[in-house]
This record gives sequence, C-alpha cells and structure tokens, in this order.
Amino acid sequence: MPRSKHKPAPESSQTNEPLGGRDGRVVTSYDVARRAGVSQSAVSRCFKPGGSAGAKMRARVRRAAEQLGYTPNAIARSLITRRSNLIAVLISNLTSLYYPEVLSELSARASAHSERVLLFALPNESDVDQTIDQVMQYQVDGVIAAVRLSLEQLESFNRRHIPVVFFNRFLRDIPVNSVCCDQVDGARMLVTRLYDAGHRRFSVIAGPKDSVVGEERVRATLDRLGEFGIRGVPVVRGNYDYESGRQGLHQLVKLAHKPPQVAVCANDLMAIGCIDAARFDLGLTVPNDLSVVGFDGVGPSTWASHRVTTIRQPVSRMAEATLTLLMDRINNPSMPPEKRILAGQLIEGNSARLS
Amino acid sequence: MPRSKHKPAPESSQTNEPLGGRDGRVVTSYDVARRAGVSQSAVSRCFKPGGSAGAKMRARVRRAAEQLGYTPNAIARSLITRRSNLIAVLISNLTSLYYPEVLSELSARASAHSERVLLFALPNESDVDQTIDQVMQYQVDGVIAAVRLSLEQLESFNRRHIPVVFFNRFLRDIPVNSVCCDQVDGARMLVTRLYDAGHRRFSVIAGPKDSVVGEERVRATLDRLGEFGIRGVPVVRGNYDYESGRQGLHQLVKLAHKPPQVAVCANDLMAIGCIDAARFDLGLTVPNDLSVVGFDGVGPSTWASHRVTTIRQPVSRMAEATLTLLMDRINNPSMPPEKRILAGQLIEGNSARLS
Repeated sequence: MPRSKHKPAPESSQTNEPLGGRDGRVVTSYDVARRAGVSQSAVSRCFKPGGSAGAKMRARVRRAAEQLGYTPNAIARSLITRRSNLIAVLISNLTSLYYPEVLSELSARASAHSERVLLFALPNESDVDQTIDQVMQYQVDGVIAAVRLSLEQLESFNRRHIPVVFFNRFLRDIPVNSVCCDQVDGARMLVTRLYDAGHRRFSVIAGPKDSVVGEERVRATLDRLGEFGIRGVPVVRGNYDYESGRQGLHQLVKLAHKPPQVAVCANDLMAIGCIDAARFDLGLTVPNDLSVVGFDGVGPSTWASHRVTTIRQPVSRMAEATLTLLMDRINNPSMPPEKRILAGQLIEGNSARLS
Repeated sequence: MPRSKHKPAPESSQTNEPLGGRDGRVVTSYDVARRAGVSQSAVSRCFKPGGSAGAKMRARVRRAAEQLGYTPNAIARSLITRRSNLIAVLISNLTSLYYPEVLSELSARASAHSERVLLFALPNESDVDQTIDQVMQYQVDGVIAAVRLSLEQLESFNRRHIPVVFFNRFLRDIPVNSVCCDQVDGARMLVTRLYDAGHRRFSVIAGPKDSVVGEERVRATLDRLGEFGIRGVPVVRGNYDYESGRQGLHQLVKLAHKPPQVAVCANDLMAIGCIDAARFDLGLTVPNDLSVVGFDGVGPSTWASHRVTTIRQPVSRMAEATLTLLMDRINNPSMPPEKRILAGQLIEGNSARLS
C-alpha cells in the first residue's frame, strides 16, 4: 500500500474512532448533510445499499463524507439495530461447476435485499461442525445452508433465533425452511424416458455418501426402476468430479456381465467424465453404444462436445426463493417453516438415446 | 424453522442481549470456564478459530456455553479490538471456471488466518464503484481485489488504513500490494513455442475490455509476435465465456483472407468454445487444421475431450501469497508495498501443434 505517499487520514475519522470524532464529537450523517447542502435523508439514501439517489447526489455526498472522514459504521449500527446485514452461506464443492453458479446467484439476491454474504466454504459437506461456532460469532441475520446440518446444529441456530433456509436439502421429520429442485421428479422423469425408449440394462454412478442431494437422486432412480421391475442395478460411487465419473464407467464395465446400456450419473460433471471414458478410453459411441444422463444443467453440459441429457435446475429462481424465505423470517420470526420445491427441466441433449 | 416446536431461547442469551445477560450481567468466558471446570484461556482457545483444543475439551466448553447462553460476540469484540476478522473479497465472473477456484482457495487460506470472507461478487469487473461504500461500512480488516480499482478507489481505502492486495492485477505507476501470475511471460512462452513450431498465421480472441488480465495477455502476445516480425494479427473480442470463444472463431474465419493457423485465446473457456467451433461447426481438426491455446489451466482444460494447451496458474500458491501479504499489512501497517509475480506453467495439451 502506498500509504506513506498519501496524506495521513484525519485523526477524527469516524472509521478509526467510532465513538469520538473531530472536536471529540461523532461525525454524523447530519454533519455530512450540512456540508453537502442536502437533507439528512438524502445522505441516508446515498449510503444505504440499494437506496435511491442519482449519480450527482452520490458524488456530492461522498465528497462531503470524505472531507469529514465519515463512514457509516455497519458494525456499530448492528449493535443498536440487532441487524448485522450479514447472511452466512454454508457451501461446499466450490470447485464443482454447480455451486459457483448457486453462490453467484445467492450473492446477487442478497445484495438486492441489502444483505452481504459471509462465506463459509467447506472442503466437504460434512465439515460443517468445525465452523458453526464461527457462524454464531458473527451475529449473522440468517443462514443459508447448502450443506447438511444435523438436528443439533439446526437447534443451536434456533435457540439463538437465527433463521435457517436449506438450499436443495432439508431435514426429515421436522419442519424446516427449504428451497429444493425436485430431485425425485427429475430422476423419475429421466428414468421413465429412458425406459420408454427401450433401455433395460441400467447402471448408476452415485455421488459421495455425505451428499444429501445425490443420495436422493439415486434412491429415486432405483425406486422408479424397481417400479418397472428392474432390480439389481449396479451402483458405483463417485466424488462429483470429472475423474470419478470417468473411473466410474470403468468400474461399471468390469462389474456387469454385459456392458450397461445406460449410465445414470448423480451430476453433470460425472456424466461428462463418463462420456469421455466411453469415447476416449473404451471406444464406445455416445449415445449409440451407451446412453449417459446427468443432473444440474451446468454450463459445460450444453457444450457442443458433450450436450448432456440432464435435468436443469432453475438456480436463479431457487436463489430468489431462498432469499425471500429468509428475509421474511428475519423480518418476522413467527412465520411458520415452509418448503418450496421447484421443478427441474428435462434437457434433451444428445448423450442419451430417448426414442 | 421449527421454532414453535422448541423451547424458547433463554432471555439472557448474550447473542440477543449483548450488553446484559442473566441477572442483568454479561455472561463472560469466565462464567463458562467456571461452569465447565476449565481455565478461561481454555475457553478462549475453544472459541478462537484455529485455537488448539482437543475434541473433549471443546465438547465440554460448548455444553457449558450453551447452558449459559454464551456466544463470543465477534462484532462487539471488533469495536474493542478494531479488528472485525472480516476480509472483503471483490471478485467478478463467478460463473467462469477460474474465479470459483480462486475464491475457494482464498476462503480456505483466510480461515487458516482466522479471517472470514465477506463476498462482493460483481456482475462485471467495472461495477466496483457501486459496492465500495459497502465495503467500508463493514469495517473490514483488509481487501482482496480480484477486480480493477481506480486510483481514487484505492486511495479511499488508504485513507481509512484498510490494506488492499490485488489478485492478478495492479495499478501502474504507483506502488501497490499485488500477487499475479506472470501473464507476460506466460503469453510469450506460448507464442515462442508456436512460432518455433512453424506457425505464422496467428489470430487472437481477446477478453472483455475491462479485464486487466486479459488485456495484458493480448498485449504480450502481440508484442512477442511483433518481435518475430508478425504484424497485423486479427483480434476479435470475447466475453470470457464458451459461446464467445465459439463465435470468436467464426468471426476470425470471416475476417482473414486465409484461415488462421493459430487462435490464441485470452482464457481457457474461450479456447474450449473455439475448439468446439472448429470441430463441430467448421469441420476442422484440432490441432492439425487449427492450433488453439488458452490461459488459466482450469479443470475442464484437462478433460480428454479438449486437453487445452495453456498456461496453468498456480492458484493455490497465489492465494497463499495473497493472504500472507494482506495479514502482514493488517498486523503491521507500515510494511512497504510488495508485488509477487509467480510463474505459470506451460501445459502441453493436444489442442496445439507444438513441433
């Protein structure tokens, strides 16, 4: 930082002395309003995230604020309002292709509600226990959990009146706030279409054991196949990444007496790995020799090289619903728990023969 | 939230009444220590992120804390210590494939330094102006800027003694803290290898105009080509996404009298789009008819379907260096500005003919 090259900050800067400014007095928004020659409410609007104020007004107010060394202190304010304007987002798998999209959407929606995302990026979904104390310490207004929480973890948020909304997961047997893509319907749609197209030798590449979403997709797949009288379907487990999808197909081919006609993958990234294993390692054509389906509808699933047949999640609408549920409960803690289950959309790529 | 099904939180919970607890008294770590039968410093260690304490000790202290309704209040503490333990990360392009990896690494490193990432995900790199007031309001300990800042924006952080470290960019002519992958050397390496392999008809798919990194890569590419006597290289501009890489090749083919032998792309994602345009739209083989190179070394650049010849950035080491620079300056504001420029690694995929 070129600090030495710049004028030292005025001693009275409110940032550095939150409880005493120039003349031992706090610099307030009224001082800024007076210096800028505008109303105090105009100053508020300029600093409030999403507040309505024109560019000229903002420039004028900001100049006056700079001159007086004024910064509205969100942290000090939070002690008075009991609002930190922070929302904790607990998320894992940031290097997958799906969760970055989720995070980006959640962050955009949070801003629109004047909230800021405090990021808890976990190496694995089951690592949440180590960070839960920290979530508490930041006095967040609410929590979005895109990871699994135990009942005990959820209750410790409840005790502190911190509302929680689950993203794409929920807890069984107790009412919670949750926004999900319909995993079950999605998986059933895929299986039904594949069955109707004449496929009978199915196989599955599941996600990691601690993935709630993945387990649900696999269970729904096997249930639907069971309804069609198809049992004993070989299942191998991957880690949601490209390489494990690729290895997954190799394992499946070794397992079965006859090679599978269909590989149902718990997410798109594994489906892409599986397609590449078929094409580049085993010399199979997709979808003629092997049909591969995924789940999520991430960007690369639309690339000309793969065009994955998949269930696309309405991520943007899911993020919107998540923030709406959460803000409603931050503003009105007595609102009852609610689940919103949004339908996914079957995307007919060209990685599966569907007729 | 199943709030109605649970016991109401004790009225004295410190979370809800930060300035007064049970008996009108603040519940302190001493109370927790007494109840748990451990020392007060043991309680501190249990709550301090990264503090050393065994699992048993943690469980015991946490139980006592729950019973007393004690949560260390990071926000109240920040008013005393002048440390919020928050680091603002300004980032854009979260739906690209590169920045999620960066964010994931920065978040992991920040946790290791007991800091938490406050996320400012911008739609475009040039949108930073609208969020800078908010960054200030949260009294962050420091800023990591993976977006462009103006001199004026940087100075307003300086005035408030908030250290800033740039990630993969910097400001010309004034000393700043910055961690970069060596864009110039990377681009020169690629061009030199391609030239040595006999390629002469080069073309470029650049990034968006407001991308500092992209502009640097393109300039270095054209400079190096100029040194080889190659001028008038056609350049089209993309938006860092797959589709614009694909469209980019279509534009280049129309522009040139003879089709290019090489497309140098400002990132991997556009390189992948460009490869697919060659293969699926134009019926060209890669690398025999067209060599395509990218930059970054993102996950999909290693897929069997593309295997992009590229410069891989040492993202993990870059994140580590960024946090080290930042924490040093948070702890010791008088440290002089420093740039660290880490070399990228040439990855010889099979998207370019290099001999």
